[in-house]
Amino acid sequence: MKACGLVVEYNPFHNGHVLHARESRENTGADVVVAVMSGPFLQRGEPAIVSKWARAEMALRGGIDLVIELPYAFATQKAEIFAKGSISLLEYLGCDSFCFGSEDGRIEPFITAHKILSDNSVAFDAAIKSAMDAGNSYPTSASLAFQSIIQNDDVLDLTKPNNILGKEYVSVALKNSFSIQPYTIQRVAAGYHETQLSSESIASATGIRKAIMEQKQELEPVAGYIPQSTRIGLEHYLSTYRTLHDWEMYWPMLKYRILSSSLMELAEIYEIEEGIEHRFKEMAKQATTFADFMAAMKTKRYTWTRLQRMCVHIFTHTLKRKMIHHDLPSYIRLLGMNARGQEYLRTVKKDLPVPLISKLSAYQKHGIETDLRAAQVYALGLPEPYQASLMKREYESPIIIK
Amino acid sequence: MKACGLVVEYNPFHNGHVLHARESRENTGADVVVAVMSGPFLQRGEPAIVSKWARAEMALRGGIDLVIELPYAFATQKAEIFAKGSISLLEYLGCDSFCFGSEDGRIEPFITAHKILSDNSVAFDAAIKSAMDAGNSYPTSASLAFQSIIQNDDVLDLTKPNNILGKEYVSVALKNSFSIQPYTIQRVAAGYHETQLSSESIASATGIRKAIMEQKQELEPVAGYIPQSTRIGLEHYLSTYRTLHDWEMYWPMLKYRILSSSLMELAEIYEIEEGIEHRFKEMAKQATTFADFMAAMKTKRYTWTRLQRMCVHIFTHTLKRKMIHHDLPSYIRLLGMNARGQEYLRTVKKDLPVPLISKLSAYQKHGIETDLRAAQVYALGLPEPYQASLMKREYESPIIIK
Repeated sequence: MKACGLVVEYNPFHNGHVLHARESRENTGADVVVAVMSGPFLQRGEPAIVSKWARAEMALRGGIDLVIELPYAFATQKAEIFAKGSISLLEYLGCDSFCFGSEDGRIEPFITAHKILSDNSVAFDAAIKSAMDAGNSYPTSASLAFQSIIQNDDVLDLTKPNNILGKEYVSVALKNSFSIQPYTIQRVAAGYHETQLSSESIASATGIRKAIMEQKQELEPVAGYIPQSTRIGLEHYLSTYRTLHDWEMYWPMLKYRILSSSLMELAEIYEIEEGIEHRFKEMAKQATTFADFMAAMKTKRYTWTRLQRMCVHIFTHTLKRKMIHHDLPSYIRLLGMNARGQEYLRTVKKDLPVPLISKLSAYQKHGIETDLRAAQVYALGLPEPYQASLMKREYESPIIIK
Repeated sequence: MKACGLVVEYNPFHNGHVLHARESRENTGADVVVAVMSGPFLQRGEPAIVSKWARAEMALRGGIDLVIELPYAFATQKAEIFAKGSISLLEYLGCDSFCFGSEDGRIEPFITAHKILSDNSVAFDAAIKSAMDAGNSYPTSASLAFQSIIQNDDVLDLTKPNNILGKEYVSVALKNSFSIQPYTIQRVAAGYHETQLSSESIASATGIRKAIMEQKQELEPVAGYIPQSTRIGLEHYLSTYRTLHDWEMYWPMLKYRILSSSLMELAEIYEIEEGIEHRFKEMAKQATTFADFMAAMKTKRYTWTRLQRMCVHIFTHTLKRKMIHHDLPSYIRLLGMNARGQEYLRTVKKDLPVPLISKLSAYQKHGIETDLRAAQVYALGLPEPYQASLMKREYESPIIIK
């Protein structure tokens, strides 16, 4: 069986994702589509609007055959680490290819970009550093540095968010001499950061989330942009747990954690650097909502995303000393599969280089603690008495859809 | 000027406290009555129903001349440490006497009890230990141990909570050869733990609080048991901050702290001993309210009070290594005074053995951090946007009532 891997967040699974899965299958000639999906907290430093279990189920009902979890240690991270975790897991699972959406749409510029940058890594790093020293954020600096090295017009545009991610995916595969082959398809209609619902049936997940949240978790306005199965999944989540998740529901706990921790303790949290713990404490004292807090925290030096990721690490209490050892993922956590996914898993199971975790209670090894804690604090956003029932899901078997 | 000191919590200040202040003044012939009052968290491991500022103001309007704060390091503690902090502060302030309410009502039995116990301290400690090893709580064990040593019927009854506290007050004064003289008056009408409103005008603070909380913060049912000034103070607090404080409002944060901390981190918290951190984590996962949680935590070995104090230390994030150095208080924190209190303070100010803190911004020394953090997390129980305004009070000058 030929397998194609996708790197996803599905927050929530929408029509664009259906298209991505279908085109990936067609372009790569795959029999099975595997998604490596972030857990409760996402790359841009946000809680997912519904649990990973609900998102995995929507994905399975929307055309994905097998869903595994990208561990927390890779999910809430800058592109480089995020890519390392996700592409490695797809390689571990024996995928023949991976296929990502990009603004560019051609795979060659990604390969070229990787080669040029790895041949000029010293100059590239120096250019990034000098751009950052001039007060730019990391993404802006990386893009400026890339432009300064490449004097060719027909080159990958590294100011575009999906190109940035894609370039990292390709780099991971090439650098590690993985057998997995990179593919890309052009993203249609909706930009990554676009918040307006414009196209007829495709909208960005950001736009869909914004519309749902602004309409007080009303799904009607987004019905045209999500498959029926996603709508049912979201409705089921709302009727089971009474709410979707956003940062505001965690704000009282985050504020409490910031204000009850010493500066030294905050400085032990992953990604808290350069004395920013002082600013966290100062701003948390005054802010009454998460939105207020972020607006007060924002400076030119720190991107919104980077600050939000710091918030996630504080909230999940993820310490620097617990994160430094993560090189490549050390386990594969199975979230769900359909019959085809199950069949595929049977064929690759015996060759997996790391343990496959399909039931948590059977796997108490060190390393998955961080994921468990993330799941636990994510559940604390729900009203009582639903917290324990969401957490209980964590210890059950993966979702199986026949 | 002759001064008499009282050790109080005033949660809230009620008619029994008016009587206590008046009789103490009369019995000791004092010109000025000084109260050393617990801050946001109380000896039995509970948040005070209103802030220390509101409670200090009620006390000043109810007949107290000067109110200082018993630091957190002594306030949320077993009787021995609680007494050490409070009696030392009254001695520091030059009080001629202190006067406590007790079930016994005579001072001699307290002095006798102290002498007998200090002459037999080895036997006493051994008797406590053997009673605890038999599965009894500390208070029960101490009372059994005392009975085993004293073969006299006309002796202090150390099963009574106010006798226990009083015995510790007297011991502190005698052990340290303080010049402050102990007095006691008999408590009338309401037992310390009594939860029913019975007598015509005197009820325990516990009973008053329970009535207020059960009536959804309605003050009418308790109007006969509190001075008009307390009623105005509570009403003012409710109209300013919208709520009184209880454990339930802190439960989501406490649950979050327990579940997001590792077992090792929990074990670093003051008073968390004997592996009870495992039990905290286990019970917190299932509990949906603080009441549920406490009911699940309770065992014969641990008193309700002791468990609640552990909860306070976890919630305020008070570490063992920050608490071990507290021998005697190292500062006097002024909360409020009337004209007579101010006059008294002027006469003793130059002889104080530790700094007097009347404005926090002027005193940034180590040691008061614990009090500040307790005030900060206490404020987080309020709805927004009131948290910052309560915390702001912390940095202003003491309350002055002319």
